[in-house]
Amino acid sequence: MSLQPYSFAKRVPALSPIGAAQATSRSDLIPFSYGTPSSDLFPYQELQEAASAAILQEGRDSLQYAGADGPQIVQDWIANRSKLRSIHVQSNQVLVTYGSQQAIDYAARTLLEPGDHAWVEAPTYFGAVNTFKAAEAIITSFPIDENGLQIELVEEALKEAVRVGQPIPKFVYVMPNFHNPGGVSLSLSRRKRLAELAYEYNFFILEDDAYAELAFEREHIPAIYNFAPERVIYLSSFSKIIAPGIRLGWAIASADVIRRINTFFQGSMASVFSQEIVAQLFQKLSFEDHLEMLITRYKSSRDIMVEALRQHFGDGITFQIPNGGFFIWLKFPDHVNTADLVQDANERGVSFIAGNQFFVKPEGARYARLSFSYCNEEQIRKGVEILAHSYNSYLSKIK
Amino acid sequence: MSLQPYSFAKRVPALSPIGAAQATSRSDLIPFSYGTPSSDLFPYQELQEAASAAILQEGRDSLQYAGADGPQIVQDWIANRSKLRSIHVQSNQVLVTYGSQQAIDYAARTLLEPGDHAWVEAPTYFGAVNTFKAAEAIITSFPIDENGLQIELVEEALKEAVRVGQPIPKFVYVMPNFHNPGGVSLSLSRRKRLAELAYEYNFFILEDDAYAELAFEREHIPAIYNFAPERVIYLSSFSKIIAPGIRLGWAIASADVIRRINTFFQGSMASVFSQEIVAQLFQKLSFEDHLEMLITRYKSSRDIMVEALRQHFGDGITFQIPNGGFFIWLKFPDHVNTADLVQDANERGVSFIAGNQFFVKPEGARYARLSFSYCNEEQIRKGVEILAHSYNSYLSKIK
Repeated sequence: MSLQPYSFAKRVPALSPIGAAQATSRSDLIPFSYGTPSSDLFPYQELQEAASAAILQEGRDSLQYAGADGPQIVQDWIANRSKLRSIHVQSNQVLVTYGSQQAIDYAARTLLEPGDHAWVEAPTYFGAVNTFKAAEAIITSFPIDENGLQIELVEEALKEAVRVGQPIPKFVYVMPNFHNPGGVSLSLSRRKRLAELAYEYNFFILEDDAYAELAFEREHIPAIYNFAPERVIYLSSFSKIIAPGIRLGWAIASADVIRRINTFFQGSMASVFSQEIVAQLFQKLSFEDHLEMLITRYKSSRDIMVEALRQHFGDGITFQIPNGGFFIWLKFPDHVNTADLVQDANERGVSFIAGNQFFVKPEGARYARLSFSYCNEEQIRKGVEILAHSYNSYLSKIK
Repeated sequence: MSLQPYSFAKRVPALSPIGAAQATSRSDLIPFSYGTPSSDLFPYQELQEAASAAILQEGRDSLQYAGADGPQIVQDWIANRSKLRSIHVQSNQVLVTYGSQQAIDYAARTLLEPGDHAWVEAPTYFGAVNTFKAAEAIITSFPIDENGLQIELVEEALKEAVRVGQPIPKFVYVMPNFHNPGGVSLSLSRRKRLAELAYEYNFFILEDDAYAELAFEREHIPAIYNFAPERVIYLSSFSKIIAPGIRLGWAIASADVIRRINTFFQGSMASVFSQEIVAQLFQKLSFEDHLEMLITRYKSSRDIMVEALRQHFGDGITFQIPNGGFFIWLKFPDHVNTADLVQDANERGVSFIAGNQFFVKPEGARYARLSFSYCNEEQIRKGVEILAHSYNSYLSKIK
């Protein structure tokens, strides 16, 4: 019998290849493209002890379907730690997920129907955008500046939408601290204003705070959640502070919203085994000491990259020095298209992500994201030097 | 500012509490309700060694974002092992997921739009039904008998749908081996006929084969996949053969369909760390010996439960002896409603799941699912005796 064409769900081909550039994994490249922690910084010994305890002491529960004490301990840790950012919640307001990517997916599917509107930053994190597209959202973006998302432009657009009878977004997706890729943080006054708008216009805020703990100045601005607890879903992760491979993140929201999001787990939950490992880890590791080690290293890596950029690029590019996180967001002169630089840079031995990958509209060609998180000092110096050679060669060709 | 009502996605309140009865976790009950492996049978020592190796030897990769060799090894193992069921595929036709529950979710979202039709068995697995409801499928069910899903009724319904111009289902969800809860297996001739219908009427088959390895007679009937490789998504899991806590399952399909399903991972994949643990485990454990141990235990547990049921219930109930899996599906006389038995049985010290929980329509009141997988011999004998007392008390009341 001959095969007839099958009509797959429309949402699947709608997925764009945004971010595909990140997929390059040639091991001979200096990977400024990796938005990942340094593998040197994982707490191997403590994780091994934690995993052994999770299996040999707690395995009857942790290796079963949901049960065990692990989840409660991890939820409690998250609730307690969140107080740093003025988030005061009960542990039933914390939902542990497979990385914050799953939390973003479940939150989007809880909030919007196909065809509903989602507003994001420009630039923004492509993983989230792809998830919103998979939920068939219509996506609009608003620019950031040195103080994060330009809330006044969001407010104007909300007013205009009401005036002309266009739909209000079901949510606004925002990264308040050490933005990926922008490196900037949302100012306190803008956080408050966005929270007010969420109540006034009745939309949710997805507050993606993956880098909050990596605050090089040990400063913690109150989360947007604090100003709109009924209209914020706050998202974060253990990926940057323990290891991505542990694949655990979380959502914080009102108990009602958490209950709704939780329905997507169908009575199950994110790996109890992994949660038990984290619970055991926190008994074997001083988190404060571990975090201090991470911050010291990443801050130093940032400083090295900043110095190298100034040395090799001089005034040719501009960037804001990030106070945390993993990224420096380079701004090249107006006529530069960094997408045209990628292949030559790869051939010379360094990878980065072209700016246009971080925008939902065709824009951002003059930008580039460099991660300082994964590479060691020597790689950073060498990589920036190579990138400068590549750029100078490019400039000489487009003159 | 006062809080306005927010319009959440319709799919969320649509989720039914089907299967909620399973959630009882009172530790003083003999849990015939648990559809879970026995915690005695997990390979603790080998898992501990595997986890240690995954962290200390392979941690630089396995604790990072995707990368590592783990996935390839696990995919290869799955592809190779599937030959037992006449499934011959390349490893790029194997997608590893967070348990088969996630594979069911991704498959459903790949195949259907909200409002599309999904056909299931009656009875069926409520976790899958809840997932289809979350994808806003319209669900219709068809009865099973001692040879599994009654394909001739499916065929009649397809013909009728075409005749009256009603929609064809986007997929049929079927459990071919050691059905949950029915305990039956789909006959070879029915597998072939269902595959033919999938081509003829152009629908997919979700072949959920979670219990395939627990074949007490070591018999492996060819999978439906074998007869319709372009129209089957085959699903299975390590939950029953290693441990549920490892949270890894898989989907097998054509390379094109796998690519589509994979888009929901947004460039990520199911935990590389967990996959590395499984890869290491298969180097430290003889899978054949381990499986032999599982089968010996579960077959013995089945025999004990069958004997106890005959001893305490006599001819009062009927059931088919399952040749594998975890479940005995009890059929009570027509006037019995097992949902009315649940509370009394719990109070006496035993849990089970009432039959109506496994149906999408209000039916199945005379059935009950008993799991023999989790309990030891003493618990099984005692539990069946208690259940018989509870049943006799119920009978005396409804007379």
